[in-house]
Amino acid sequence: MAGISYADFLDRDYDPAADDLVCEFAVEPADGLDVDAVAGRVASESSNGTWAELQVEGTITDLSARAFDVSEGRVRVAYPDALFEPGSMAQVLSCIAGNIMGMKAVDRIRLLDCEWPESLARSFPGPQFGSSVRAELFDAGERPITASVPKPKVGLSTDQHARIGYEIWTGGVDLLKDDENLTDQGFNSYEDRLTESLAMRDRAEDETGEKKSYLVNVTGPGPEMLERVDLAAEHGCEYVMVDVITAGWGMVEQVRDRCERHGLAIHAHRAMHAAFDRVPNHGVSMRVLAQIARLCGVDQLHTGTAGLGKLENEDTAGINEWLTSDLHGLTDVLPVASGGLHPGLVPDLLDALGTNLAVQVGGGIHGHPDGSHAGAKAFRAAIDATVEGRSLSAAAEDSPELATALDRWGTQGTR
Amino acid sequence: MAGISYADFLDRDYDPAADDLVCEFAVEPADGLDVDAVAGRVASESSNGTWAELQVEGTITDLSARAFDVSEGRVRVAYPDALFEPGSMAQVLSCIAGNIMGMKAVDRIRLLDCEWPESLARSFPGPQFGSSVRAELFDAGERPITASVPKPKVGLSTDQHARIGYEIWTGGVDLLKDDENLTDQGFNSYEDRLTESLAMRDRAEDETGEKKSYLVNVTGPGPEMLERVDLAAEHGCEYVMVDVITAGWGMVEQVRDRCERHGLAIHAHRAMHAAFDRVPNHGVSMRVLAQIARLCGVDQLHTGTAGLGKLENEDTAGINEWLTSDLHGLTDVLPVASGGLHPGLVPDLLDALGTNLAVQVGGGIHGHPDGSHAGAKAFRAAIDATVEGRSLSAAAEDSPELATALDRWGTQGTR
Repeated sequence: MAGISYADFLDRDYDPAADDLVCEFAVEPADGLDVDAVAGRVASESSNGTWAELQVEGTITDLSARAFDVSEGRVRVAYPDALFEPGSMAQVLSCIAGNIMGMKAVDRIRLLDCEWPESLARSFPGPQFGSSVRAELFDAGERPITASVPKPKVGLSTDQHARIGYEIWTGGVDLLKDDENLTDQGFNSYEDRLTESLAMRDRAEDETGEKKSYLVNVTGPGPEMLERVDLAAEHGCEYVMVDVITAGWGMVEQVRDRCERHGLAIHAHRAMHAAFDRVPNHGVSMRVLAQIARLCGVDQLHTGTAGLGKLENEDTAGINEWLTSDLHGLTDVLPVASGGLHPGLVPDLLDALGTNLAVQVGGGIHGHPDGSHAGAKAFRAAIDATVEGRSLSAAAEDSPELATALDRWGTQGTR
Repeated sequence: MAGISYADFLDRDYDPAADDLVCEFAVEPADGLDVDAVAGRVASESSNGTWAELQVEGTITDLSARAFDVSEGRVRVAYPDALFEPGSMAQVLSCIAGNIMGMKAVDRIRLLDCEWPESLARSFPGPQFGSSVRAELFDAGERPITASVPKPKVGLSTDQHARIGYEIWTGGVDLLKDDENLTDQGFNSYEDRLTESLAMRDRAEDETGEKKSYLVNVTGPGPEMLERVDLAAEHGCEYVMVDVITAGWGMVEQVRDRCERHGLAIHAHRAMHAAFDRVPNHGVSMRVLAQIARLCGVDQLHTGTAGLGKLENEDTAGINEWLTSDLHGLTDVLPVASGGLHPGLVPDLLDALGTNLAVQVGGGIHGHPDGSHAGAKAFRAAIDATVEGRSLSAAAEDSPELATALDRWGTQGTR
């Protein structure tokens, strides 16, 4: 009966099994420790070790992680499948991004990337629809689908909100979207907003002959969120929106489960992600967050604007590529570009990210000098022109709204 | 009808209203921006502004936040009560710790502290029991209550786990605690572990004449967590444990709701907190996290070891003081010290944090050369001696187990 200590978790010769979860970490060892010492501690603390040398009966190595690929500032760790509870993102994260984030043995540590084995990946549901909504729901052809959040983001009355929905839908936008901070407040209640917006949606569909939908934010107190999902389905919406980080993965898993009953798609906003993914040498990367979101089954996820908008972005193109590539047969996720966009940025955006995308424009529509309807027309003109290979300046000759937008904001990025 | 822009959100003369939520941020402006420019952007993006100057009807200032106290690197922002959905932590966080964490206008931003007004605070349930469990459940007198996680943290069979529970309970520990990574895995299922551990708990209570309980980890897939809460109640447990960050606040709110029906207390593990609170100039502070946890209604929360253990800590004493001070009449939270502790650290720990505390020791019990039962006796002897004002060396004369523990680990901190 031998004791087990940190060093036992470092195994340079280890060859990961097909069903191991392999995680790559960036590590900055604390004073007095080298990367080998840190590698053993990361694998230990995130699986079944601890600081004290233990004297216990039984085999524990079946559940031990192995640090197997160690270089300056980088560690790859392989986790056995049996360590994880199938289908529980909370449990997986408590292993691979839990206590180790706070270990004294490292000054900084960042979970950079994961290679998800089939067994673990398929214990999660994955998305129901993913990027198929572009063709199936909107018949959007080669173009990205489009969305707009009314501005001011919160403070409009229900009536104003629904009316702006009508203006942007009839201006050529596919999706009205709630702001991440708009849920069920006194000035604009969830149920009234849902029903009044969908009434306007129906009117806009009739007038345009195009399919329209609404990303209604069901985020709220835990005990009420599933009722909001049910209401969205009952009133004929095709989507719900969830603030996935602030509501949390347990809630997302429940919403996914409920949405399958109703055939609803999930639009995931990532508010608060930058609290843990922005500092480049610490926390959990946006790439891993995107992986988590796909496994948990959201259909659309905000992944940034390739640096063109007002928010910092981590490798939007690479993350989007991962979201739309094969993952053991799980459905893909439609990436959403949002945050400080306007019509003049559309060519650069689609050049960077392609067209298998949802593009959300808020201020860049509602700040249009001629109002939201004109702003929506300008945005749609920019999308259509870019997909057709025409320049914005050429398109602006046929679209006075786009010409005005370009006069207002040019083609420069925002912050 | 005037446009609204970032500058409108800076109001140095603003005097916060009694029901405003006041948040303090540390900010590092991006190149080319001063702290005034940044202050307006923080207040704008976290309430109802955006990058574009808007032309809209209606009054929006009722929902606008104000940056009112601006100095080098610090901004205080007041948020009107009407901005928030009562009782929804997800919605509050999407405002005060959402998009602003990723704004290009700041290189780094950290939510340091919040002053919660009565209206918003009391829209949350707060804890049911808090620190009253020490007297009410355990009749613990002046001493902290004690807990122990079996080690290895995961990998023990259900039988081994329950047997270690018996050893530590009969050794003088109050609470068996699951590891944050142990939920419902093939090697140790939730329901079997619950029932077998509680059977051992009953035996230990009979033998010792003391109250014992079990912090059983109900964390799991979202759709199953509430069933695990129900099972814990059904089998006569007094507590559930939740990995609050990885499961998420929506789930915690649901668990709190369900626990009230059953009269169960909630033990909150904070795995993953260090992903967003460790870097001192970015993210969300542990202090704010503790505030969130109290509002959402957990009874016990891990807050660190005042730097004595293996994990980095932010101001444990100050956070514990906040958790146990008045908050508009909401019940307090019992702080939990855990992570790399052993008997030799008890005097320094209680000197730093007082005795209104739960102290959890894992490796420092199960790594005892004579096993877990001896380790538990050593730990309890250290607790009792310290509370009685005796030195550990004096106590070790009456406790061979403590003497062995001190020989093994001394009185030095771990990492």
